[in-house]
Amino acid sequence: MTFAATILTLYPEMFPGPLELSLAGRALGEGKWVCDPVQIRDFATDKHRSVDDTPAGGGAGMVMRADVLARAVDHAMDRQPGVPVLAMTPRGRPLTQARVRDLAAGPGAIILCGRFEGIDERLFEARPIEPVSIGDYILSGGEMAALVLLDACIRLLPGVMGAASSGDEESFESGLLEYPHYTRPAEWEGRTIPEVLRSGDHAKIEAWRTAMAETDTRLRRPDLWERHEGARVQSPSGARQQKKER
Amino acid sequence: MTFAATILTLYPEMFPGPLELSLAGRALGEGKWVCDPVQIRDFATDKHRSVDDTPAGGGAGMVMRADVLARAVDHAMDRQPGVPVLAMTPRGRPLTQARVRDLAAGPGAIILCGRFEGIDERLFEARPIEPVSIGDYILSGGEMAALVLLDACIRLLPGVMGAASSGDEESFESGLLEYPHYTRPAEWEGRTIPEVLRSGDHAKIEAWRTAMAETDTRLRRPDLWERHEGARVQSPSGARQQKKER
Repeated sequence: MTFAATILTLYPEMFPGPLELSLAGRALGEGKWVCDPVQIRDFATDKHRSVDDTPAGGGAGMVMRADVLARAVDHAMDRQPGVPVLAMTPRGRPLTQARVRDLAAGPGAIILCGRFEGIDERLFEARPIEPVSIGDYILSGGEMAALVLLDACIRLLPGVMGAASSGDEESFESGLLEYPHYTRPAEWEGRTIPEVLRSGDHAKIEAWRTAMAETDTRLRRPDLWERHEGARVQSPSGARQQKKER
Repeated sequence: MTFAATILTLYPEMFPGPLELSLAGRALGEGKWVCDPVQIRDFATDKHRSVDDTPAGGGAGMVMRADVLARAVDHAMDRQPGVPVLAMTPRGRPLTQARVRDLAAGPGAIILCGRFEGIDERLFEARPIEPVSIGDYILSGGEMAALVLLDACIRLLPGVMGAASSGDEESFESGLLEYPHYTRPAEWEGRTIPEVLRSGDHAKIEAWRTAMAETDTRLRRPDLWERHEGARVQSPSGARQQKKER
Protein backbone atom coordinates (compact mmCIF):
# COMPACT_ATOMS: atom_id res chain seq x y z
CA MET A 1 0.00 0.00 0.00
CA THR A 2 1.22 3.49 -0.83
CA PHE A 3 1.04 6.13 1.89
CA ALA A 4 -0.62 9.13 0.22
CA ALA A 5 -0.15 12.64 1.57
CA THR A 6 -2.20 15.58 0.32
CA ILE A 7 -0.70 18.87 1.47
CA LEU A 8 -2.87 21.99 1.47
CA THR A 9 -0.43 24.89 1.32
CA LEU A 10 0.37 28.33 -0.07
CA TYR A 11 3.85 26.99 -0.95
CA PRO A 12 3.37 23.76 -2.92
CA GLU A 13 6.93 24.09 -4.26
CA MET A 14 8.21 23.27 -0.74
CA PHE A 15 7.12 19.62 -1.27
CA PRO A 16 8.61 17.05 -1.33
CA GLY A 17 11.67 19.32 -0.86
CA PRO A 18 14.13 17.71 1.57
CA LEU A 19 12.02 14.52 1.46
CA GLU A 20 13.34 13.93 -2.05
CA LEU A 21 16.70 12.97 -0.53
CA SER A 22 17.99 10.24 1.75
CA LEU A 23 15.67 7.59 3.24
CA ALA A 24 12.42 9.38 2.32
CA GLY A 25 13.65 10.13 -1.19
CA ARG A 26 14.49 6.48 -1.83
CA ALA A 27 11.06 5.45 -0.51
CA LEU A 28 9.44 8.07 -2.77
CA GLY A 29 11.30 6.65 -5.77
CA GLU A 30 10.11 3.17 -4.83
CA GLY A 31 6.49 4.32 -4.67
CA LYS A 32 6.18 3.63 -0.93
CA TRP A 33 4.63 7.07 -0.49
CA VAL A 34 3.32 9.84 -2.71
CA CYS A 35 2.96 13.53 -2.08
CA ASP A 36 0.34 15.77 -3.66
CA PRO A 37 0.77 19.44 -2.75
CA VAL A 38 -2.40 21.45 -3.43
CA GLN A 39 -2.37 25.24 -3.75
CA ILE A 40 -4.93 26.69 -1.30
CA ARG A 41 -5.19 29.82 -3.46
CA ASP A 42 -6.93 27.72 -6.13
CA PHE A 43 -9.96 27.62 -3.81
CA ALA A 44 -10.30 31.38 -3.44
CA THR A 45 -13.24 32.95 -5.27
CA ASP A 46 -12.29 36.60 -5.76
CA LYS A 47 -10.09 37.93 -8.55
CA HIS A 48 -7.20 38.56 -6.13
CA ARG A 49 -7.32 34.89 -5.06
CA SER A 50 -7.46 36.03 -1.40
CA VAL A 51 -7.00 33.37 1.25
CA ASP A 52 -6.70 35.67 4.27
CA ASP A 53 -8.24 38.76 5.84
CA THR A 54 -7.67 41.01 8.87
CA PRO A 55 -8.38 39.56 12.35
CA ALA A 56 -11.86 40.18 13.76
CA GLY A 57 -11.42 42.34 16.85
CA GLY A 58 -8.20 43.89 15.52
CA GLY A 59 -4.56 43.04 15.95
CA ALA A 60 -1.47 42.41 13.85
CA GLY A 61 -1.21 40.17 10.81
CA MET A 62 -3.77 38.24 8.81
CA VAL A 63 -6.00 35.23 9.47
CA MET A 64 -6.69 32.41 7.00
CA ARG A 65 -10.33 32.35 5.90
CA ALA A 66 -12.54 29.44 6.97
CA ASP A 67 -14.55 29.44 3.73
CA VAL A 68 -11.54 29.17 1.41
CA LEU A 69 -9.81 26.56 3.58
CA ALA A 70 -13.01 24.52 3.90
CA ARG A 71 -13.28 24.31 0.12
CA ALA A 72 -9.68 23.08 -0.08
CA VAL A 73 -10.25 20.56 2.72
CA ASP A 74 -13.51 19.31 1.14
CA HIS A 75 -11.72 18.84 -2.18
CA ALA A 76 -8.98 16.77 -0.53
CA MET A 77 -11.49 14.75 1.52
CA ASP A 78 -13.47 13.96 -1.64
CA ARG A 79 -10.34 12.57 -3.23
CA GLN A 80 -9.13 10.71 -0.14
CA PRO A 81 -12.25 9.79 1.83
CA GLY A 82 -11.71 8.48 5.35
CA VAL A 83 -8.14 9.70 5.62
CA PRO A 84 -7.21 11.71 8.76
CA VAL A 85 -7.17 15.48 8.23
CA LEU A 86 -4.51 17.30 10.23
CA ALA A 87 -3.78 21.01 10.55
CA MET A 88 -0.28 22.06 11.60
CA THR A 89 -0.71 24.81 14.20
CA PRO A 90 0.96 25.75 17.51
CA ARG A 91 -2.51 25.55 19.12
CA GLY A 92 -2.65 21.83 18.27
CA ARG A 93 -2.11 18.65 20.25
CA PRO A 94 1.62 17.88 20.58
CA LEU A 95 2.78 15.27 18.08
CA THR A 96 3.91 12.02 19.69
CA GLN A 97 5.69 8.95 18.36
CA ALA A 98 2.50 6.95 19.11
CA ARG A 99 0.44 9.24 16.84
CA VAL A 100 3.15 8.99 14.17
CA ARG A 101 2.95 5.16 14.35
CA ASP A 102 -0.86 5.31 14.00
CA LEU A 103 -0.65 7.59 10.99
CA ALA A 104 2.09 5.53 9.33
CA ALA A 105 -0.06 2.40 9.71
CA GLY A 106 -2.90 4.09 7.83
CA PRO A 107 -3.53 5.02 4.20
CA GLY A 108 -2.09 8.54 4.43
CA ALA A 109 -3.06 12.01 5.58
CA ILE A 110 -4.44 15.33 4.44
CA ILE A 111 -2.24 18.02 5.96
CA LEU A 112 -3.32 21.65 6.12
CA CYS A 113 -0.44 24.10 6.58
CA GLY A 114 -1.35 27.21 8.56
CA ARG A 115 0.26 30.56 7.76
CA PHE A 116 0.08 34.15 9.02
CA GLU A 117 -1.45 34.66 12.49
CA GLY A 118 -3.56 31.52 12.27
CA ILE A 119 -6.69 29.88 10.91
CA ASP A 120 -10.30 31.04 11.44
CA GLU A 121 -11.40 28.89 14.40
CA ARG A 122 -14.77 28.07 12.81
CA LEU A 123 -12.98 25.73 10.39
CA PHE A 124 -12.15 23.41 13.32
CA GLU A 125 -15.78 23.44 14.47
CA ALA A 126 -17.17 22.72 11.00
CA ARG A 127 -14.76 20.06 9.72
CA PRO A 128 -13.22 16.95 11.37
CA ILE A 129 -9.72 18.44 11.53
CA GLU A 130 -7.13 17.41 14.11
CA PRO A 131 -4.91 20.35 15.08
CA VAL A 132 -1.32 19.13 15.55
CA SER A 133 1.71 20.93 16.97
CA ILE A 134 5.27 19.65 16.48
CA GLY A 135 6.59 21.65 19.44
CA ASP A 136 6.33 24.73 21.64
CA TYR A 137 7.91 27.23 19.25
CA ILE A 138 6.63 29.32 16.35
CA LEU A 139 7.43 28.64 12.70
CA SER A 140 6.87 30.89 9.70
CA GLY A 141 4.21 28.42 8.57
CA GLY A 142 2.91 24.88 8.83
CA GLU A 143 4.93 23.66 5.85
CA MET A 144 8.07 22.85 7.85
CA ALA A 145 5.91 21.10 10.44
CA ALA A 146 4.25 19.04 7.68
CA LEU A 147 7.69 18.01 6.38
CA VAL A 148 8.64 16.89 9.90
CA LEU A 149 5.41 14.91 10.29
CA LEU A 150 5.89 13.23 6.92
CA ASP A 151 9.54 12.39 7.59
CA ALA A 152 8.56 10.77 10.91
CA CYS A 153 5.81 8.71 9.22
CA ILE A 154 7.73 7.70 6.10
CA ARG A 155 10.63 6.06 7.94
CA LEU A 156 8.10 3.75 9.64
CA LEU A 157 6.46 2.57 6.40
CA PRO A 158 7.06 -1.14 5.67
CA GLY A 159 10.42 -1.74 4.01
CA VAL A 160 11.74 1.80 4.38
CA MET A 161 14.19 1.28 7.26
CA GLY A 162 14.90 -2.40 6.61
CA ALA A 163 14.50 -5.23 9.10
CA ALA A 164 17.65 -4.39 11.07
CA SER A 165 16.30 -1.10 12.39
CA SER A 166 12.76 -1.71 13.53
CA GLY A 167 12.88 1.41 15.64
CA ASP A 168 11.53 -0.44 18.66
CA GLU A 169 14.43 0.55 20.90
CA GLU A 170 14.39 4.21 20.02
CA SER A 171 13.65 7.23 22.16
CA PHE A 172 9.95 7.53 23.15
CA GLU A 173 8.98 4.03 21.95
CA SER A 174 9.15 2.85 25.56
CA GLY A 175 8.16 6.24 26.97
CA LEU A 176 11.82 6.91 27.77
CA LEU A 177 14.75 8.59 26.05
CA GLU A 178 17.03 6.13 24.32
CA TYR A 179 20.19 4.99 26.13
CA PRO A 180 23.52 6.60 25.07
CA HIS A 181 25.43 5.16 22.13
CA TYR A 182 29.11 4.40 21.66
CA THR A 183 31.18 3.10 18.77
CA ARG A 184 34.82 2.76 17.71
CA PRO A 185 37.46 4.00 18.37
CA ALA A 186 37.53 2.20 21.74
CA GLU A 187 39.60 5.06 23.13
CA TRP A 188 39.29 8.64 21.93
CA GLU A 189 40.92 11.71 23.50
CA GLY A 190 41.54 9.56 26.60
CA ARG A 191 37.84 8.65 26.86
CA THR A 192 36.91 4.97 26.75
CA ILE A 193 33.70 3.14 25.92
CA PRO A 194 31.97 1.98 29.15
CA GLU A 195 33.44 -1.38 30.24
CA VAL A 196 30.08 -3.19 30.30
CA LEU A 197 29.54 -2.58 26.56
CA ARG A 198 32.78 -4.44 25.82
CA SER A 199 31.95 -7.34 28.15
CA GLY A 200 30.00 -9.42 25.64
CA ASP A 201 27.51 -10.18 28.44
CA HIS A 202 24.21 -9.46 26.73
CA ALA A 203 22.07 -9.54 29.88
CA LYS A 204 24.39 -7.08 31.62
CA ILE A 205 24.45 -4.82 28.55
CA GLU A 206 20.65 -4.87 28.40
CA ALA A 207 20.39 -4.01 32.10
CA TRP A 208 22.92 -1.16 31.74
CA ARG A 209 21.06 0.30 28.78
CA THR A 210 17.73 0.19 30.61
CA ALA A 211 19.27 1.84 33.66
CA MET A 212 20.89 4.55 31.52
CA ALA A 213 17.65 5.22 29.64
CA GLU A 214 15.86 5.61 32.98
CA THR A 215 18.55 7.84 34.51
CA ASP A 216 18.82 10.11 31.46
CA THR A 217 15.04 10.44 31.21
CA ARG A 218 14.74 11.27 34.92
CA LEU A 219 17.49 13.89 34.73
CA ARG A 220 16.81 15.41 31.31
CA ARG A 221 13.08 14.98 30.95
CA PRO A 222 11.31 14.86 34.32
CA ASP A 223 8.05 15.42 32.40
CA LEU A 224 8.48 12.20 30.39
CA TRP A 225 9.68 10.31 33.47
CA GLU A 226 6.59 11.30 35.47
CA ARG A 227 4.29 10.08 32.68
CA HIS A 228 6.29 6.86 32.34
CA GLU A 229 6.09 6.15 36.07
CA GLY A 230 2.38 7.01 36.14
CA ALA A 231 1.69 4.53 33.33
CA ARG A 232 3.73 1.82 35.05
CA VAL A 233 1.88 2.17 38.35
CA GLN A 234 -1.54 2.22 36.66
CA SER A 235 -1.04 -0.80 34.39
CA PRO A 236 -1.95 -4.24 35.85
CA SER A 237 1.58 -5.58 35.30
CA GLY A 238 2.95 -2.43 36.87
CA ALA A 239 0.68 -2.98 39.87
CA ARG A 240 1.92 -6.53 40.26
CA GLN A 241 5.47 -5.32 40.06
CA GLN A 242 4.77 -2.74 42.74
CA LYS A 243 3.47 -5.44 45.06
CA LYS A 244 6.43 -7.69 44.44
CA GLU A 245 8.78 -4.86 45.28
CA ARG A 246 7.28 -4.43 48.75
CA MET B 1 24.31 41.84 11.60
CA THR B 2 23.90 38.66 9.59
CA PHE B 3 22.79 35.51 11.40
CA ALA B 4 25.25 32.83 10.27
CA ALA B 5 24.34 29.14 10.43
CA THR B 6 26.92 26.41 9.87
CA ILE B 7 25.22 23.04 9.38
CA LEU B 8 27.26 19.86 9.87
CA THR B 9 25.43 17.19 7.90
CA LEU B 10 25.68 14.17 5.62
CA TYR B 11 23.11 15.87 3.35
CA PRO B 12 24.37 19.41 2.62
CA GLU B 13 22.06 19.54 -0.41
CA MET B 14 19.07 19.72 1.99
CA PHE B 15 20.05 23.32 2.86
CA PRO B 16 18.67 25.92 2.56
CA GLY B 17 15.96 23.79 0.88
CA PRO B 18 12.50 25.02 1.93
CA LEU B 19 14.14 28.04 3.58
CA GLU B 20 14.85 29.40 0.10
CA LEU B 21 11.14 30.24 -0.20
CA SER B 22 8.68 32.53 1.57
CA LEU B 23 9.74 34.69 4.53
CA ALA B 24 13.07 32.91 5.13
CA GLY B 25 13.91 32.96 1.42
CA ARG B 26 13.32 36.71 1.19
CA ALA B 27 15.49 37.24 4.29
CA LEU B 28 18.21 35.04 2.75
CA GLY B 29 18.12 37.15 -0.43
CA GLU B 30 18.43 40.31 1.68
CA GLY B 31 21.50 38.93 3.49
CA LYS B 32 19.76 38.83 6.89
CA TRP B 33 21.04 35.28 7.35
CA VAL B 34 23.47 32.94 5.63
CA CYS B 35 23.68 29.19 5.61
CA ASP B 36 26.86 27.17 5.20
CA PRO B 37 26.23 23.43 5.00
CA VAL B 38 29.39 21.42 5.68
CA GLN B 39 29.76 17.75 4.65
CA ILE B 40 30.73 15.69 7.71
CA ARG B 41 32.28 13.06 5.43
CA ASP B 42 35.04 15.55 4.56
CA PHE B 43 36.38 15.01 8.09
CA ALA B 44 36.68 11.23 7.81
CA THR B 45 40.24 9.91 7.52
CA ASP B 46 39.89 6.50 5.90
CA LYS B 47 39.58 5.87 2.19
CA HIS B 48 35.89 4.91 2.53
CA ARG B 49 35.20 8.29 4.22
CA SER B 50 33.46 6.44 7.08
CA VAL B 51 31.51 8.53 9.57
CA ASP B 52 29.82 5.68 11.44
CA ASP B 53 30.47 2.25 12.91
CA THR B 54 28.53 -0.53 14.67
CA PRO B 55 27.22 0.17 18.20
CA ALA B 56 29.47 -0.93 21.08
CA GLY B 57 27.60 -3.66 22.97
CA GLY B 58 25.65 -4.71 19.86
CA GLY B 59 22.28 -3.72 18.47
CA ALA B 60 20.75 -2.54 15.21
CA GLY B 61 21.99 0.28 13.02
CA MET B 62 25.09 2.43 13.11
CA VAL B 63 26.45 5.11 15.44
CA MET B 64 28.19 8.32 14.34
CA ARG B 65 31.85 8.39 15.35
CA ALA B 66 33.00 10.89 17.99
CA ASP B 67 36.42 11.43 16.37
CA VAL B 68 35.05 12.34 12.92
CA LEU B 69 32.30 14.56 14.35
CA ALA B 70 34.73 16.30 16.70
CA ARG B 71 36.93 17.25 13.75
CA ALA B 72 33.91 18.70 11.96
CA VAL B 73 32.78 20.58 15.08
CA ASP B 74 36.31 21.92 15.74
CA HIS B 75 36.50 23.15 12.16
CA ALA B 76 33.18 25.00 12.50
CA MET B 77 34.12 26.42 15.92
CA ASP B 78 37.42 27.72 14.50
CA ARG B 79 35.53 29.58 11.82
CA GLN B 80 32.76 30.84 14.12
CA PRO B 81 34.32 31.18 17.57
CA GLY B 82 31.92 31.76 20.47
CA VAL B 83 28.82 30.72 18.56
CA PRO B 84 26.49 28.18 20.26
CA VAL B 85 26.96 24.61 19.04
CA LEU B 86 23.74 22.59 18.93
CA ALA B 87 23.17 18.94 18.06
CA MET B 88 19.72 17.89 16.88
CA THR B 89 18.88 14.66 18.71
CA PRO B 90 15.78 13.18 20.38
CA ARG B 91 17.87 12.84 23.56
CA GLY B 92 18.21 16.64 23.70
CA ARG B 93 16.53 19.38 25.69
CA PRO B 94 13.13 20.29 24.16
CA LEU B 95 13.32 23.41 22.01
CA THR B 96 11.31 26.33 23.41
CA GLN B 97 10.34 29.71 22.01
CA ALA B 98 12.53 31.32 24.71
CA ARG B 99 15.60 29.41 23.44
CA VAL B 100 14.68 30.38 19.86
CA ARG B 101 14.56 34.07 20.89
CA ASP B 102 17.99 33.77 22.57
CA LEU B 103 19.52 32.16 19.50
CA ALA B 104 17.96 34.67 17.11
CA ALA B 105 19.39 37.54 19.20
CA GLY B 106 22.91 36.08 18.79
CA PRO B 107 25.41 35.86 15.93
CA GLY B 108 24.25 32.47 14.64
CA ALA B 109 24.67 28.78 15.40
CA ILE B 110 26.65 25.69 14.51
CA ILE B 111 24.13 22.87 14.07
CA LEU B 112 25.17 19.21 14.04
CA CYS B 113 22.62 16.91 12.41
CA GLY B 114 22.53 13.40 13.89
CA ARG B 115 21.78 10.39 11.68
CA PHE B 116 21.47 6.61 12.10
CA GLU B 117 20.97 5.32 15.67
CA GLY B 118 22.71 8.31 17.22
CA ILE B 119 26.00 10.01 18.09
CA ASP B 120 28.83 8.56 20.19
CA GLU B 121 28.10 10.00 23.65
CA ARG B 122 31.73 10.93 24.27
CA LEU B 123 31.36 13.80 21.81
CA PHE B 124 28.99 15.53 24.26
CA GLU B 125 31.47 15.06 27.11
CA ALA B 126 34.42 16.38 25.11
CA ARG B 127 32.90 19.39 23.34
CA PRO B 128 30.54 22.18 24.52
CA ILE B 129 27.57 20.90 22.51
CA GLU B 130 23.94 21.54 23.48
CA PRO B 131 21.71 18.60 22.54
CA VAL B 132 18.36 19.90 21.29
CA SER B 133 15.12 18.02 20.51
CA ILE B 134 12.31 19.59 18.49
CA GLY B 135 9.73 17.11 19.84
CA ASP B 136 8.98 13.64 21.17
CA TYR B 137 9.06 11.77 17.87
CA ILE B 138 11.80 10.24 15.71
CA LEU B 139 12.99 11.71 12.41
CA SER B 140 15.18 10.08 9.77
CA GLY B 141 17.88 12.57 10.72
CA GLY B 142 18.64 15.89 12.34
CA GLU B 143 18.41 17.81 9.05
CA MET B 144 14.64 18.38 9.22
CA ALA B 145 15.02 19.43 12.87
CA ALA B 146 17.75 21.91 11.87
CA LEU B 147 15.45 23.38 9.21
CA VAL B 148 12.73 23.82 11.85
CA LEU B 149 15.14 25.48 14.27
CA LEU B 150 16.43 27.83 11.56
CA ASP B 151 12.93 28.74 10.38
CA ALA B 152 11.92 29.59 13.97
CA CYS B 153 15.02 31.78 14.43
CA ILE B 154 14.98 33.52 11.04
CA ARG B 155 11.46 34.92 11.38
CA LEU B 156 12.57 36.70 14.57
CA LEU B 157 15.60 38.40 12.99
CA PRO B 158 15.26 42.20 12.84
CA GLY B 159 13.24 43.33 9.83
CA VAL B 160 12.11 39.87 8.72
CA MET B 161 8.50 39.96 9.92
CA GLY B 162 8.03 43.72 9.76
CA ALA B 163 6.89 45.95 12.58
CA ALA B 164 3.24 44.88 12.41
CA SER B 165 3.90 41.31 13.53
CA SER B 166 6.32 41.46 16.42
CA GLY B 167 5.24 38.02 17.49
CA ASP B 168 4.67 39.15 21.07
CA GLU B 169 1.09 37.90 21.20
CA GLU B 170 1.80 34.49 19.73
CA SER B 171 1.48 31.07 21.29
CA PHE B 172 4.11 30.35 23.99
CA GLU B 173 5.36 33.96 24.22
CA SER B 174 3.24 34.39 27.35
CA GLY B 175 3.56 30.74 28.35
CA LEU B 176 0.06 30.14 26.96
CA LEU B 177 -1.42 29.02 23.66
CA GLU B 178 -2.59 31.88 21.53
CA TYR B 179 -6.28 32.85 21.60
CA PRO B 180 -8.45 31.66 18.67
CA HIS B 181 -8.63 33.77 15.52
CA TYR B 182 -11.56 34.83 13.35
CA THR B 183 -11.89 36.80 10.15
CA ARG B 184 -14.43 37.55 7.41
CA PRO B 185 -16.93 36.35 6.32
CA ALA B 186 -18.87 37.42 9.44
CA GLU B 187 -21.19 34.47 8.92
CA TRP B 188 -20.08 31.20 7.37
CA GLU B 189 -22.11 27.98 7.20
CA GLY B 190 -24.39 29.46 9.86
CA ARG B 191 -21.47 30.12 12.20
CA THR B 192 -20.81 33.68 13.34
CA ILE B 193 -17.76 35.45 14.71
CA PRO B 194 -18.06 35.84 18.53
CA GLU B 195 -20.08 38.99 19.33
CA VAL B 196 -17.38 40.57 21.49
CA LEU B 197 -14.90 40.69 18.58
CA ARG B 198 -17.37 42.83 16.63
CA SER B 199 -18.08 45.17 19.59
CA GLY B 200 -15.21 47.59 18.93
CA ASP B 201 -14.62 47.63 22.72
CA HIS B 202 -10.87 47.06 22.91
CA ALA B 203 -10.73 46.39 26.64
CA LYS B 204 -13.46 43.76 26.36
CA ILE B 205 -11.76 42.18 23.35
CA GLU B 206 -8.46 42.04 25.23
CA ALA B 207 -10.15 40.42 28.25
CA TRP B 208 -11.95 37.87 26.06
CA ARG B 209 -8.71 36.93 24.28
CA THR B 210 -6.86 36.47 27.56
CA ALA B 211 -9.69 34.34 28.95
CA MET B 212 -9.76 32.21 25.77
CA ALA B 213 -5.97 31.75 25.79
CA GLU B 214 -6.19 30.58 29.40
CA THR B 215 -9.15 28.25 28.81
CA ASP B 216 -7.64 26.68 25.70
CA THR B 217 -4.27 26.19 27.40
CA ARG B 218 -5.92 24.60 30.46
CA LEU B 219 -8.02 22.24 28.33
CA ARG B 220 -5.54 21.40 25.55
CA ARG B 221 -2.20 21.69 27.30
CA PRO B 222 -2.49 21.02 31.03
CA ASP B 223 1.33 20.67 31.05
CA LEU B 224 1.82 24.25 29.81
CA TRP B 225 -0.92 25.54 32.11
CA GLU B 226 0.71 24.02 35.18
CA ARG B 227 4.06 25.62 34.33
CA HIS B 228 2.34 28.95 33.65
CA GLU B 229 0.50 28.90 36.98
CA GLY B 230 3.65 27.82 38.80
CA ALA B 231 5.56 30.79 37.37
CA ARG B 232 2.73 33.19 38.22
CA VAL B 233 2.51 32.11 41.86
CA GLN B 234 6.30 32.26 42.30
CA SER B 235 6.80 35.72 40.78
CA PRO B 236 6.42 38.73 43.15
CA SER B 237 3.66 40.29 41.03
CA GLY B 238 1.89 36.93 40.94
CA ALA B 239 2.09 36.76 44.74
CA ARG B 240 0.54 40.20 45.08
CA GLN B 241 -2.25 39.24 42.73
CA GLN B 242 -2.90 36.10 44.75
CA LYS B 243 -3.33 38.19 47.89
CA LYS B 244 -5.65 40.63 46.22
CA GLU B 245 -7.82 37.78 45.07
CA ARG B 246 -8.43 36.51 48.61
